[in-house]
Amino acid sequence: MTDPMTLKLDDCRALDAQDPLRDLRQQFMLPEGLIYLDGNSLGVLPRAAVDRVAHAVIAEWGQGLIRSWNSAGWFDLPQRVGDKIAQLIGAEPGEVVVTDSTSVNLYKVLSAALNLAAADGPGRRVVVSERSNFPTDLYIAEGLCKARGLQLLLVEPDDLSAAMTADAAVLMLTHVNYRTGAMHDMAAMTAAAHAAGILTVWDLAHSAGAVPVDLNGVKADFAVGCGYKYLNGGPGAPAFVWVHAHHVERFWQPLSGWWGHASPFAFTPGYQPAPGINRYLCGTQPMLSLTALDCGLDAILAAAPFGGMAALRHKSLALTDVFIDLVNQGCAGHGLAIATPLAHGERGSQVSLSRAEGAYAIVQALVARGVIGDFRAGDASGPLASQLDILRFGFTPLYTGFEDVWTAVEHLRQVLESGEWRQPAFAQKNAVT
Amino acid sequence: MTDPMTLKLDDCRALDAQDPLRDLRQQFMLPEGLIYLDGNSLGVLPRAAVDRVAHAVIAEWGQGLIRSWNSAGWFDLPQRVGDKIAQLIGAEPGEVVVTDSTSVNLYKVLSAALNLAAADGPGRRVVVSERSNFPTDLYIAEGLCKARGLQLLLVEPDDLSAAMTADAAVLMLTHVNYRTGAMHDMAAMTAAAHAAGILTVWDLAHSAGAVPVDLNGVKADFAVGCGYKYLNGGPGAPAFVWVHAHHVERFWQPLSGWWGHASPFAFTPGYQPAPGINRYLCGTQPMLSLTALDCGLDAILAAAPFGGMAALRHKSLALTDVFIDLVNQGCAGHGLAIATPLAHGERGSQVSLSRAEGAYAIVQALVARGVIGDFRAGDASGPLASQLDILRFGFTPLYTGFEDVWTAVEHLRQVLESGEWRQPAFAQKNAVT
Repeated sequence: MTDPMTLKLDDCRALDAQDPLRDLRQQFMLPEGLIYLDGNSLGVLPRAAVDRVAHAVIAEWGQGLIRSWNSAGWFDLPQRVGDKIAQLIGAEPGEVVVTDSTSVNLYKVLSAALNLAAADGPGRRVVVSERSNFPTDLYIAEGLCKARGLQLLLVEPDDLSAAMTADAAVLMLTHVNYRTGAMHDMAAMTAAAHAAGILTVWDLAHSAGAVPVDLNGVKADFAVGCGYKYLNGGPGAPAFVWVHAHHVERFWQPLSGWWGHASPFAFTPGYQPAPGINRYLCGTQPMLSLTALDCGLDAILAAAPFGGMAALRHKSLALTDVFIDLVNQGCAGHGLAIATPLAHGERGSQVSLSRAEGAYAIVQALVARGVIGDFRAGDASGPLASQLDILRFGFTPLYTGFEDVWTAVEHLRQVLESGEWRQPAFAQKNAVT
Repeated sequence: MTDPMTLKLDDCRALDAQDPLRDLRQQFMLPEGLIYLDGNSLGVLPRAAVDRVAHAVIAEWGQGLIRSWNSAGWFDLPQRVGDKIAQLIGAEPGEVVVTDSTSVNLYKVLSAALNLAAADGPGRRVVVSERSNFPTDLYIAEGLCKARGLQLLLVEPDDLSAAMTADAAVLMLTHVNYRTGAMHDMAAMTAAAHAAGILTVWDLAHSAGAVPVDLNGVKADFAVGCGYKYLNGGPGAPAFVWVHAHHVERFWQPLSGWWGHASPFAFTPGYQPAPGINRYLCGTQPMLSLTALDCGLDAILAAAPFGGMAALRHKSLALTDVFIDLVNQGCAGHGLAIATPLAHGERGSQVSLSRAEGAYAIVQALVARGVIGDFRAGDASGPLASQLDILRFGFTPLYTGFEDVWTAVEHLRQVLESGEWRQPAFAQKNAVT
């Protein structure tokens, strides 16, 4: 870790010069003059996607037409892209498919997990999650629990262990928290859940491509994740789903569409689920978006010769350490607090800063200066510390350098020192920031 | 109707010359030398989509990044494209959203319909459909019925009326049959269902953009449809969903994700469904594929000055009449039968030919000659007439001309006369044709 009292622009430039991953940035089309610290919301454009998507439109769709299901490999693209994701999350080839949205996939796996729990141990009628889990995960769980007459129990992170009782069927957690960047110990949590007879469902939205994940190593049960954040798949790219080999063939998932059928082109009456993870497919998938995601994965897998996810994690921690140091060094006295855990093992690839007021306007003032982070409102129903609004900064080691971090914090310092964030224009909220 | 005994190539050219819609074809990028009669499976590429998708990749994603949720209008694209589809299916602005796949949307509306039926009339425990409905529709219904302990009753078309009993909750039908092209009378079926206290769920996969549909006019209850067939949205384009205004706010649909929330960006705990059809959204949608679909819709709406869907239907019937006449005229004695109803009111925009053997190889021999139709296997569990294999030809009046029809049938005649379809290479089945 660098010395926070002496970290200068030249030090950051030296860190970039020593960075073995620095050339991976050339794979991406970064807007001129922009420092993009929001890859945890929407990853940037891989250069290869420009030609690949154009090819999918003009050659595969335009010229190949229906023949491209075979000739362009559309039909097994969910599996081929899934196999690339598998390499990032500790899964085997053939264990991951790319399909639908994270929310829809969560519905599938939580349904299957509840069926599995009911078959294995009747009487378990509680789904345990974190109160501060990503809202859509809780909405999906709320809907399923309501439909099945089950209880959704939401607790603070410190109370998760106590909630793992004989009533609990499923522990549903997001590995890295979207607001704070706090990361669960997946191995320990999964082991504790299993010791209590509870199945685990992990949302890897802020983990896949951001931190090393070893689903088979920790013996997780079910996992889903997002294609357009750290996987750089483009806006609304399809999501992915993984199920442990022990469970995958025990149940149908409820969205029993043709693409999850054992013989999808037989068009036979009577649903027969496909072997393995393919049964988690449902309807036809958006090939243009899936093609873009394939390029995003290639850009991550290009880090393999340099150490892959371990090397990316090493740089991510260095970037976030530098950011934290620089904020502490340059922005002291402005009411900012580091809301992300400082311990390496307890955080993902983002740093969140909390502030009692003005967080939204400060984010907007930074955007006006070409530094893009994002804003997340305080959690009014949570404990005191989580009621503060958040300035959120994602660090994507594939395309973010140490000089970017220095420049971003310098802009933040100037925004705070100058008070320019108090301009009325920065206070107006748009739908998305 | 033309005289089947005298229809010549010059007659077809004359029909093209008189066709007021002939210039709409210029909107599409048709492969040189190909006659594409498979737009009922995957519509062709609208020229505008090439630049629009490239713009979405390079400018909206690449340069705009997260800001494009607002600045490029990503956030309301499901509604804006939905409003265009609404114009084709007799729905009002704000009644249709584009999202997910047809199968996933069918799960949502059938779930909601069953909840509605249970609330309005307990004891109705049967979902009625056609045995020859599209398999994925039946798979979804089978899964839902299994999970809820309901019965899925599958009958032949002639037995649908008898199946509308006091036990029936929902009548789920595909408007135009994917194999035969037979079209239900949506107004009469819906009225009969309502008279028996039964809700209707319509799949418009082979109707939207192909035949006039008037959902509000016939007082349908729920409808879903496909984006990549007659709507020309590109491979796996998102699907659409419509619910009658009387029902739309009575229930959650089960896939209660963030995009269907009343305040999707408030990130508040506790699901509150959005007003109206927006609650049928779930997770983030694939923007590149959605952008392509928007272009497909524009290409159909360009027919509005010429009479819109009524004019497209007029031409579609003329094309299919000519095809039927030419097949009867040129291909007699080769064991082909017209499997599509001849009456205009009873068919969609395709013509299916049945044959006791060789249908697959004949389709392949046509493909080798640059005439693309497709093959559907006989329905072994069905009545005798439906056990025959099908050669399926879709006619999309936006980009198909009468000379195309003449040339296609001439190739079919030559394939049959020459017996070239008996070559072993044409007998090998791929996954998709």
